[in-house]
Amino acid sequence: MTGATTTIARSDCVALDASDKLASLRDLFSLPPNQIYLDGNSLGVLPTATSGRLQAVIADEWGTDLIRSWNSAGWMDLPNRIGDKIGTLIGASPGQVIVADSTSVNLYKVLSSALALQRADATKTTILSDASMFPSDLYVAEGLAKTWNLELQLVPTSDLLAAIGPHTAVVLLTPVSYRTGELLDMHQFTSVAHSAGALMVWDLAHSAGAHVVDLLGCDADFAIGCGYKYLNGGPGAPSFVWAHPRHVNAVSQPLQGWLGHDAPFSFATSYVPAPGIQRYVAGTPPVLSLAALECGVDTVLAASPLGGMPALRRKSLALTRLFIDCIAERCGNAFEVVTPTEDTRRGSQVSLRLTRGTGQNAYAIVQALIAEHNVVGDFRAPDLLRFGFTPLYTRFVDVFDAVYAIASVLETRAYEAQVYQVRAKVT
Amino acid sequence: MTGATTTIARSDCVALDASDKLASLRDLFSLPPNQIYLDGNSLGVLPTATSGRLQAVIADEWGTDLIRSWNSAGWMDLPNRIGDKIGTLIGASPGQVIVADSTSVNLYKVLSSALALQRADATKTTILSDASMFPSDLYVAEGLAKTWNLELQLVPTSDLLAAIGPHTAVVLLTPVSYRTGELLDMHQFTSVAHSAGALMVWDLAHSAGAHVVDLLGCDADFAIGCGYKYLNGGPGAPSFVWAHPRHVNAVSQPLQGWLGHDAPFSFATSYVPAPGIQRYVAGTPPVLSLAALECGVDTVLAASPLGGMPALRRKSLALTRLFIDCIAERCGNAFEVVTPTEDTRRGSQVSLRLTRGTGQNAYAIVQALIAEHNVVGDFRAPDLLRFGFTPLYTRFVDVFDAVYAIASVLETRAYEAQVYQVRAKVT
Repeated sequence: MTGATTTIARSDCVALDASDKLASLRDLFSLPPNQIYLDGNSLGVLPTATSGRLQAVIADEWGTDLIRSWNSAGWMDLPNRIGDKIGTLIGASPGQVIVADSTSVNLYKVLSSALALQRADATKTTILSDASMFPSDLYVAEGLAKTWNLELQLVPTSDLLAAIGPHTAVVLLTPVSYRTGELLDMHQFTSVAHSAGALMVWDLAHSAGAHVVDLLGCDADFAIGCGYKYLNGGPGAPSFVWAHPRHVNAVSQPLQGWLGHDAPFSFATSYVPAPGIQRYVAGTPPVLSLAALECGVDTVLAASPLGGMPALRRKSLALTRLFIDCIAERCGNAFEVVTPTEDTRRGSQVSLRLTRGTGQNAYAIVQALIAEHNVVGDFRAPDLLRFGFTPLYTRFVDVFDAVYAIASVLETRAYEAQVYQVRAKVT
Repeated sequence: MTGATTTIARSDCVALDASDKLASLRDLFSLPPNQIYLDGNSLGVLPTATSGRLQAVIADEWGTDLIRSWNSAGWMDLPNRIGDKIGTLIGASPGQVIVADSTSVNLYKVLSSALALQRADATKTTILSDASMFPSDLYVAEGLAKTWNLELQLVPTSDLLAAIGPHTAVVLLTPVSYRTGELLDMHQFTSVAHSAGALMVWDLAHSAGAHVVDLLGCDADFAIGCGYKYLNGGPGAPSFVWAHPRHVNAVSQPLQGWLGHDAPFSFATSYVPAPGIQRYVAGTPPVLSLAALECGVDTVLAASPLGGMPALRRKSLALTRLFIDCIAERCGNAFEVVTPTEDTRRGSQVSLRLTRGTGQNAYAIVQALIAEHNVVGDFRAPDLLRFGFTPLYTRFVDVFDAVYAIASVLETRAYEAQVYQVRAKVT
């Protein structure tokens, strides 16, 4: 299936799905009919359990039991319970992860903690990150760099390892680039950071639920992540946060709220941080959003008896490999595959760039795919077509059909039509 | 009905409900059957519209339209749309309020902004607050005071006005004490703060939807508030934030997220704050929680054609007055009414303290009321029985029956039983 001389047939893909031991996981989702959704790295698909669960939380827990549900329905424990579930997906131990707030807010917490730990060393003058890091993360880092009188140093991905030096206080990275889909070696980067006396902060937004992550194994310092991408927690789902046990009691975080207090119901006037990761909770838990997130996380945990994250990762790699091969076979040299083709360097997405054509054309192809073929990927300025492959619900035949649609858009040159040339605000 | 010589009859209360022009608003809620719920200042009751709305958001907007709903379903605009609705309840103009994050996180934002505005004045050395302020707010203030090398000065409510002085950078208060229910004069406090060169930050958690608030009229500087109390937005609902137009573009806030950026979809690497209150949004909006909050806010807006907040305030005062009168009539001198009895100094709650008996007894009365009479109030350590009266759904006859139940618990001395003596973690 990988050589240029072999033609990939749709029946091959049907056969791959038939023998896929993870195939049944697709039944856990309410997928839009007749759509091929390759945007789960932007917003995960709705789990079938979510609607009923939210109804129960709303009608029974809130509607009937009201304030008592903080205890009787375990609302107070949701940040910890869901955190523990996510912990199993990212190589953290029970009690090390909590769910709260947004990724931006959680990054502010952990980056503040990391900088506080480095405060005593005046030679540590920079926060290092990737020039193509999530912009929102860079905004948080930029603000904290200013507050702490540090430099935010941004370099291309390929220059990152060499840029880590004795001046580096904190390295802030995401294992998978949201733009290129390139996967970094978390062990290597963390090790190089530590060798330079820097702390390693990971944003797992495109990693949790997408590939194998081993936070304790790679000896990371802090991590945060997103609930609404591969964890299928719903639009704007809460985020999770992890701190290595060697740090968690050594440092506080600036968003001191009552549920991060050691004794929240003492209503004491002075703040005493709770032991462990609990101190990273600030305000009252957003129960409805947390209930939806738990349903999403449970879809990933459903893979556990089928091989768990390693099995999901193998399927993800097979899907992206198939996509790359099919693109080569069907679309000739129309696209450059921006994502690394080596399995060890590829996340769960593939990004393409037109070899001939503008960013406007690339955007128009994405729009034509949606409008004419119900194939949903997205566009990332200035010129990337981005396709995400969530192994929980994406079939091999979906990959085949998506490439067929892409080739069809290329052949009909629909993407040159004026109607597809307007740049959307959100994709 | 107010004198000691007149007996208040249940039929009087039935008549009050019959002539109450706001009575129909109760139909907007799914109230637990046979329960008298006097804890809406802790968690508001479920609106009837919420369940269906969430179903539509989940099944149609998320489930079917997926990522496109950020535009097509107006998800991106939810923080602003709901903010504008809340603005009408608190005396703010359209475009001045957004909804995001928790109250703790929003307080961190506005308090940081206020302190940044005062930074240039070295004589401003303290943040002043009430010793009985929300503990969570004090934790945020304590953290920022430490960061900014300021003192957090806490004084009793009665000493607050005198404590405002040239050294005061920021006055942080809530108009209604969560403990005593005492209502402060927002105009007076803001005016005195300004006279001393201090900025005034209000936490409207027990105010929005509970009494008339006029942020622009009283010339406040910053305000935040809670979505899950009188706004009925559901457990852990997102919070709102307001900044006076004279400040909003003069200062940024430290939680620099992509949706507070001037051009979030440019994916620029450097942060430029959006004009206006939008800069107080940080991460991706929590859509499910926001949808529920909007249903809650709409229940308050439903009072608009019936007289709006002034009418709700009049009913609230009548309810709390009736409660105070009934307690005096039925419970003799068993209780001290902690809440001020003057209308102008009373929020939408009444707090009681046993004239003879311990905090354990007070706690036990609250528990006995729930267990034996299905009357839900709450206990605030060390010794307060707290009853909240949400005018949207509380009837006069509920007040009568609740006091009947309280008198019954006193008479049967059920509160002395061992079973009610264990202090709960959450009430």
